[in-house]
Amino acid sequence: MEYLVKITITLKQGVLDTQGKAVTASLHGMGGYEALQEVRVGRFLELRLSAKDRGTVLTLAEGMCDDLLVNDLIEERSIEVVEIR
Amino acid sequence: MEYLVKITITLKQGVLDTQGKAVTASLHGMGGYEALQEVRVGRFLELRLSAKDRGTVLTLAEGMCDDLLVNDLIEERSIEVVEIR
Repeated sequence: MEYLVKITITLKQGVLDTQGKAVTASLHGMGGYEALQEVRVGRFLELRLSAKDRGTVLTLAEGMCDDLLVNDLIEERSIEVVEIR
Repeated sequence: MEYLVKITITLKQGVLDTQGKAVTASLHGMGGYEALQEVRVGRFLELRLSAKDRGTVLTLAEGMCDDLLVNDLIEERSIEVVEIR
């Protein structure tokens, strides 16, 4: 089976998001976006995997997050698995 | 009302994703991830806004994407609006 794994990585609450602050300041500077209060910037990864079942895919995805993709000290992740065929 | 807007930005199909290729190569180099076929790297933004209704929020979010956040030539976006209070 082939699967698509969508991983959303965000900074933990309390971690200073300098990139988000810069984006907020830019948008405020443009005018018309006074309603905007905060921007937090994260990452989004789409992985394509071949595996025998959804459980295997989730285990592999968790492993890849731990080994390379996510810094658990400052980031948190959310993983969604979609079967594509 | 206060809203959370989740914006997922991905490279369009056909646009070369050098960052994704680098991540794929790193994971393959680690061993144990032969099941991985492709990684595409995108961005994820979380915006907090105060506005009177969901329609206003969506219009503002679309405007911010057009004005600053998304490069329509090579990227596509998906916008989700969540009422938080």
